[in-house]
Amino acid sequence: MNRSILTVPVRKVEGDSPAPFPAPIQDLLAVEEPLEIRLGDKSISITMRTPGNDFELAAGFLFTEGILHHAAEIGEIGWSPASHANGGQNQRQLGNSVTVLLNPGVEVDLERLERHFYTTSSCGVCGKASIEAVAMQGCPMLPRHAPVVQSSVIHGMPGTVRRAQPVFERTGGLHAAALFSPDGTLQLLREDVGRHNAVDKLIGAEMLGERTPLSNHVMFVSSRASFELVQKALMAGIPILAAVGAPSSLAVETAQRFNLTLLGFVRDSRFNIYSGASRIQ
Amino acid sequence: MNRSILTVPVRKVEGDSPAPFPAPIQDLLAVEEPLEIRLGDKSISITMRTPGNDFELAAGFLFTEGILHHAAEIGEIGWSPASHANGGQNQRQLGNSVTVLLNPGVEVDLERLERHFYTTSSCGVCGKASIEAVAMQGCPMLPRHAPVVQSSVIHGMPGTVRRAQPVFERTGGLHAAALFSPDGTLQLLREDVGRHNAVDKLIGAEMLGERTPLSNHVMFVSSRASFELVQKALMAGIPILAAVGAPSSLAVETAQRFNLTLLGFVRDSRFNIYSGASRIQ
Repeated sequence: MNRSILTVPVRKVEGDSPAPFPAPIQDLLAVEEPLEIRLGDKSISITMRTPGNDFELAAGFLFTEGILHHAAEIGEIGWSPASHANGGQNQRQLGNSVTVLLNPGVEVDLERLERHFYTTSSCGVCGKASIEAVAMQGCPMLPRHAPVVQSSVIHGMPGTVRRAQPVFERTGGLHAAALFSPDGTLQLLREDVGRHNAVDKLIGAEMLGERTPLSNHVMFVSSRASFELVQKALMAGIPILAAVGAPSSLAVETAQRFNLTLLGFVRDSRFNIYSGASRIQ
Repeated sequence: MNRSILTVPVRKVEGDSPAPFPAPIQDLLAVEEPLEIRLGDKSISITMRTPGNDFELAAGFLFTEGILHHAAEIGEIGWSPASHANGGQNQRQLGNSVTVLLNPGVEVDLERLERHFYTTSSCGVCGKASIEAVAMQGCPMLPRHAPVVQSSVIHGMPGTVRRAQPVFERTGGLHAAALFSPDGTLQLLREDVGRHNAVDKLIGAEMLGERTPLSNHVMFVSSRASFELVQKALMAGIPILAAVGAPSSLAVETAQRFNLTLLGFVRDSRFNIYSGASRIQ
């Protein structure tokens, strides 16, 4: 059973259908369910996500938020016991809470979770503070030029991802995040109703496989490029982020600050370069 | 000066441009900046949003989260004083923190903010708990049939919104939320990089104008329909939600539970009815 898809009855209206409306037909929806992420006995976050690759999502979230840094810090990832899931009694409920246990001696900065990520004491709440907060999370500047990717490789990514995205094809409801090598080979793809979750699942899988930093890769997302996605790419050391949609101002400013190559409107054999043009040939 | 748009240099690559790439041209981006929402001296939330209509955003957020219920509870909404904005010293920083002051005698349930919205003690973390949490916020069931809207009116909404969305036209980076009367007249439109912010700005404007509940309106969104957007529509008493994109499973289940009419894939003179078909003629 695929927990990512649900069948529901839908009435499809086209133009001025004659009344009464056509009878409902069965159609597919992307599933959205809450996932609780626990670090030991502490509840860290609840996100609305599409079930599937939940351990990767938990690991990726803790990694891109700067709480964890290496797979070696993790002792075990599993479904939270029923007592932690507030008395959850069946598989579905049990499958909505993940607990990450750390190895002995590993300390994490839980206070980071209490602090506001987008504020600094020096300049209050502003875009500049948000960018500085990324630096304070320990993101290094990316090396200036490598890798170099052909523009034809970028042009090919939307089609490659669409062909590899079976759930999206059937529901239209999922964002994709995909990892490519510089020659355009698709390495990994993850889907979710939330674009940040798709990215966390992707980066989490690589982090658990001890393949981070991803310094020789391109990340492609089927969504717009927000500040949050740029931040997650930087935390994973990804030098090139290519988005189907538009970037925001803060995404561009952050990319420029850290030497990330940011591409937007990647579709129909066109794209815009907002930062880091030297990596595109 | 329009704070919603920023001009940046962009290199536009089309097909296999001959090297070197075309020189940068000036292009427009949607601005993304953090906004802190304060209730008195307490920091409630920080959201990444597009500047503009920030007081409406703050009011709408507090309203759709179930913290505030009527405009009469609000004494004043203004930019946070510099001391609250952690020493913010210029207009831009000052313009990223909004403080809502309540009228004397108004009490709010701040503990609600500490509790996890998507969990209940009876069934832990699951979709059903998320739906029940909406009921516990005080959402009444919507009346079963009214209003009734012609399908031709729904077909016309994407075009009407696109024509009324000047920033999107120029940046491609903004979500829209629009309020329509049942005859298809556009009442109000708000834009933001975050779809939930666009909805909060829209509902906040109506709440501040003392026009909630919006029981004779259609809300149109240029995005997918997530659980969160259905929840916000219900908090405002909106009986019909029409989305350009796909709904999620939990959005459909929540709409069915509260008699909300949920329409998806509203584009190209077509749409799907997922719930509440009796309101469409």
